[in-house]
Amino acid sequence: MVYDFLIEDLPRTQKAIGTDKGLAKIGDTIVNLTYSVAKSICLTKNQFNHRIIRTGQKVSKKILSEALKKAEMKNYARNRADAHDLADTVEAILAYVWINNNITIKEMIKFLESHLSENIVHRVDEIEIAANAFAKLLNLIKKDLPKEKI
Amino acid sequence: MVYDFLIEDLPRTQKAIGTDKGLAKIGDTIVNLTYSVAKSICLTKNQFNHRIIRTGQKVSKKILSEALKKAEMKNYARNRADAHDLADTVEAILAYVWINNNITIKEMIKFLESHLSENIVHRVDEIEIAANAFAKLLNLIKKDLPKEKI
Repeated sequence: MVYDFLIEDLPRTQKAIGTDKGLAKIGDTIVNLTYSVAKSICLTKNQFNHRIIRTGQKVSKKILSEALKKAEMKNYARNRADAHDLADTVEAILAYVWINNNITIKEMIKFLESHLSENIVHRVDEIEIAANAFAKLLNLIKKDLPKEKI
Repeated sequence: MVYDFLIEDLPRTQKAIGTDKGLAKIGDTIVNLTYSVAKSICLTKNQFNHRIIRTGQKVSKKILSEALKKAEMKNYARNRADAHDLADTVEAILAYVWINNNITIKEMIKFLESHLSENIVHRVDEIEIAANAFAKLLNLIKKDLPKEKI
């Protein structure tokens, strides 16, 4: 099934995609799903006692806003954006490439998981590690985003 | 990528799957993602002015608990379950079949969307319509769940 009619009206510019509120709402669930599963896989693989961990995780605005900065994609967000706006922009971008069939949910999970490490059990480390993983995901899909800025 | 090792430790019984808290957390994001996109598609298709609607939707406990009752699957939930528990059970069941590769996110979206109607714009109707759509989804995947109850 193809849903790309859902983004037909969007101007093909970085700013239009990165500031779309509807895309951000859809992307919010994509981010939380993919990170939850990636984190569950990572924690399970690294358990010395082979205990299986299933966890759900609301990805913090801090993680996503840092990811956008690390990927040098702040220009996709609105001017004078705060952390919340920057996080929304990451969510909107990921929804855009998913709806556009450039990447699947499972591919995102696999990619994120490959960039996590057992140190995510420590809260402070997790923010840094997860932000890096999302920044790399943004770099991966950058080729599928419009070249035009505004 | 296969994640079914994430459910290897679960006893293959209806109650064990339906009451697993980790599965419910992962399922929460699956439910919200699939319904958000299904609702966006439905609203966009039924707009007389061809406006495109992208929306995110946190699916209410009411919708999910009603769905479990309509599908006659209350026995998957814990004893003396309240609406919150029943909703968690729906989320856990959907996470289970998704992790087990019995159904994809896109297949869930297509199925839900085919059972929505333009009347979801009315809040009261939406609860009824969405509960029916999720009940039908539960009936669809029932064959992939364990036969053993406890």
